Amino acid sequence: MSELSIGKEEYLARRRRVVSEVEAQGARGMVLFGSTSIFYLTGFAFLPTERPAALILEPERASLFVPRLEQEHAEETAFVDLVRTYPEYPGERHPMRCLADFLEELGLGEGTLAADAPGYGSGWGYEGPPLDQLLSGVVIKLLPKLVERHRMIKSPQEVRLIRESARWGNLAHALLQEYSRPGATENEISLRASLEATQAMVRTLGPTFEPRGGEGASAGFRGQIGPNSALPHAITRNLRLREGDVLVTGASATVWGYGSELERTMFVGRPSPEQRKFFDLMLALQDLSFETIRPGIPCAEVDRAVRAFYDRHELWPYWRHHVGHALGLLGHEAPFFDIGDGTIIEPGMVFSVEPGLYVPGLGGFRHSDTLVITENGFELLTYYPRDLESLICG
Amino acid sequence: MSELSIGKEEYLARRRRVVSEVEAQGARGMVLFGSTSIFYLTGFAFLPTERPAALILEPERASLFVPRLEQEHAEETAFVDLVRTYPEYPGERHPMRCLADFLEELGLGEGTLAADAPGYGSGWGYEGPPLDQLLSGVVIKLLPKLVERHRMIKSPQEVRLIRESARWGNLAHALLQEYSRPGATENEISLRASLEATQAMVRTLGPTFEPRGGEGASAGFRGQIGPNSALPHAITRNLRLREGDVLVTGASATVWGYGSELERTMFVGRPSPEQRKFFDLMLALQDLSFETIRPGIPCAEVDRAVRAFYDRHELWPYWRHHVGHALGLLGHEAPFFDIGDGTIIEPGMVFSVEPGLYVPGLGGFRHSDTLVITENGFELLTYYPRDLESLICG
Repeated sequence: MSELSIGKEEYLARRRRVVSEVEAQGARGMVLFGSTSIFYLTGFAFLPTERPAALILEPERASLFVPRLEQEHAEETAFVDLVRTYPEYPGERHPMRCLADFLEELGLGEGTLAADAPGYGSGWGYEGPPLDQLLSGVVIKLLPKLVERHRMIKSPQEVRLIRESARWGNLAHALLQEYSRPGATENEISLRASLEATQAMVRTLGPTFEPRGGEGASAGFRGQIGPNSALPHAITRNLRLREGDVLVTGASATVWGYGSELERTMFVGRPSPEQRKFFDLMLALQDLSFETIRPGIPCAEVDRAVRAFYDRHELWPYWRHHVGHALGLLGHEAPFFDIGDGTIIEPGMVFSVEPGLYVPGLGGFRHSDTLVITENGFELLTYYPRDLESLICG
Repeated sequence: MSELSIGKEEYLARRRRVVSEVEAQGARGMVLFGSTSIFYLTGFAFLPTERPAALILEPERASLFVPRLEQEHAEETAFVDLVRTYPEYPGERHPMRCLADFLEELGLGEGTLAADAPGYGSGWGYEGPPLDQLLSGVVIKLLPKLVERHRMIKSPQEVRLIRESARWGNLAHALLQEYSRPGATENEISLRASLEATQAMVRTLGPTFEPRGGEGASAGFRGQIGPNSALPHAITRNLRLREGDVLVTGASATVWGYGSELERTMFVGRPSPEQRKFFDLMLALQDLSFETIRPGIPCAEVDRAVRAFYDRHELWPYWRHHVGHALGLLGHEAPFFDIGDGTIIEPGMVFSVEPGLYVPGLGGFRHSDTLVITENGFELLTYYPRDLESLICG
C-alpha cells in the first residue's frame, strides 16, 4: 500500500460500519448506486455514464456490478470480493434486470434490502425501473444519507491525503500568481500554472501518486476577473487581465480522489483605497470565523458570529453566501457553516472557511482556506499567504 | 446575438414546445430542477451545488429560482422573464419552502404541475423534501424525460456550435499527436495541447466566443496508454509514453455549452503486426457503421450490423461496448447505437460512432467520430485523419 492511498483495511472498516448500521435497521445488505459512495467503499474510481453500476454489501461480501467495459478496470483497482458484469446499456436485457438476477443469486431476493436510491440515476441518457419493481419479494429501505454521514469525519489517512492535496494546490496557486500579469488571458495563466504544478507533482511523488479522479494539480479563476469577480460562482469567460482588476482564484489537487480548497483575492497592480477597504473587511471576516470555529459547537454558530459582523459593519449589500462547507471526495460536502445547519462540529471534519464580500462593479473579496477540526480547535491545511502585500500581481 | 450562441428566439421556441406538451398533459406549468435542462431552456450556465435551482415555465412566463449568490449572474446571462432568489442553503428557511412560496405567488399553488424530478437532487451535501410535500393543493406530474427527448434533435444552430467544437477539438488533437513522443508523460502532453489549442481558439474567435461551461479546447488520453488503453474507461494515471505503446485519445471543445467527440487510436513508433491487424479490424468496424447509419432505421440496427462483424471475425473476446451514443450538451446522451435501443434515427440527431476492440496486454483500438444525421444519410463533423500511417507518433 502506497503512502498516498487508502489501504484495504480502511476500506474493510468503512464497509463493516455500513453493514452494521444496515443490519441494525433489519436489512440483510445494501445496494449503493452513487459513484462517490462506491469509490469511498471500494477505491474504484470510474466514469459514471448511462451504464448503471452498483455495489452490493453483505456482512461477509462486497460485490461490484458493472458494465462489461469496466470489468478489467474494476478487477484491477477495486477492493472487492467479486466483480459481476452485464453486457451493456440498454442492451438486450436491461441492466437493472441483470442486477435483480444477481441479487437473487446472492440470496438477497427476499427480506429487507437497504439502498441509497430507488434505482440507478444518470442524466446521461439513462432510463430504467426502480429496484423494488424488479424484486417483488424484497422490501427496499432507502438510506440515501448513510454513507454521506460516514464521510463527514475524516480518518487520519484521509486528512493525510487532503494535506498532500493542499501542498500541490499551493504550488499551482504560486504559479498562477506568478503568471497573472496585465494582458494575459485567463486560460493562458490557469492552464500553464496547472500544467507546471501537475508536472512537478508527478515528478516529485513518482509512482506513489495515483490521482484516482482528476488529473493532478490545478489553479484558475473560473471567470472571477475584474468586475466579474463580484459573481461568486462566475464561469470561465477567458477574460484578459487588466491593471486594477480584483481576482478571485481557486487551486486544488486530486490525491487518491481527495481534494482541498485554496482561494485568494489578488490584485493586478496596486489596489484602490476602496478595494483595500473591502479586502481588509474580508480578512476580518475570515479571522472572526477562525476565532469561532471549534469542536463541540453547532456549525450554525460560526455563521451566526460572522453574520453579526455583517450587521455591525453594514455589509449586507455585499453578502452572498454562508461561511463554508465540508469537503473531501467532493468539492462541497455536508455539513455547512450556515445558520440553518445544527450539526455539531467534531474532530476529523474538514471544512472550507470563506466568508466573502461582493461589490458590484468593484470586485469580489474572498479567501478560502481548508482546515481540519482537532480535539481542541483546528489545524489549517492550506498555508498560502493571506495578507494584501503578498497578493499583488503583475 | 453572436454567431456562436443560441439566440433568444430559439430559447423561446424551446420553451413553447415544453409548455405546449405540459398543457396537453393537463398541467399549468413545469418546474425543472436539472441543470442541463435549465441551461437548454434559458442559456444560464452555472455550477450546480448544494443550493437548489429551478426553472418555472408557464405559458407566458419563465422564472428562474436561484440562491442569492447567483442573482447578478442569472440576471446577466439567463434569457428569462424573472429571477427570484432565496438567501442560502440550508438557510433559516429551507430553499424548497421558499420555492413553494414562490409557486403559490405565481398562482401555481393548486391544480397540476409538471416537474422533471420529485425535488432538487445533489450529491453535494443537499437534503430536502419533495415538492408535493410542500404544496398540498398540487398534483405533481413527473415528466423526467421530456426535455431530454426534445434535446435529441439538434437545430441547425446547435449543429453549427457542435461543428465549431469539432474544429477546435481537431486542433487540440493535432497538437496532442505532435507532442506524443517516447518519454513524455500523459499530463505534460495533454495539458500543453489543451493550453495551446484553447489559446488559439480564444484568439481566433475573439469576443464572439463564450464557452458557457468548460474552458475551451482539450485533448488527452484519460489513462489509455500502452496496455492500459485496453481499458475503454481508464482514468488518468500520468503514465510515460514508451516506444510500441498503443494510445487511445480524446479531444473536444466547448462552444456555448456544446461539445463534439473525436477519438483516435495512435501508435508510438511503428505498430507491431498484431497491433496493425487490430487497427485494421477496428477501421473496418467503423466503416461498416458508417455504411449502416441512415435516417429511418432503428438505432439497434447499427449495433446489429456491427455485431455481425464481431461474429464473422470471431472478435467477441475484444468487444466491450455499443457502437455509439448521441451527444451535444452532455458527453453521452440518448439514443444509443445499441441492440436494445429501438429509437428511429432522425435528421438532426448527432452521434458518436466508435466501435472498439480491446486486447488485454496489447492495447485498445477505437476511433470516435461525430456525425449529424441528414435527410439522406449523415455528415461527418469531425475530420481528423483515420488511416494508420497518419496516426504514428514520435
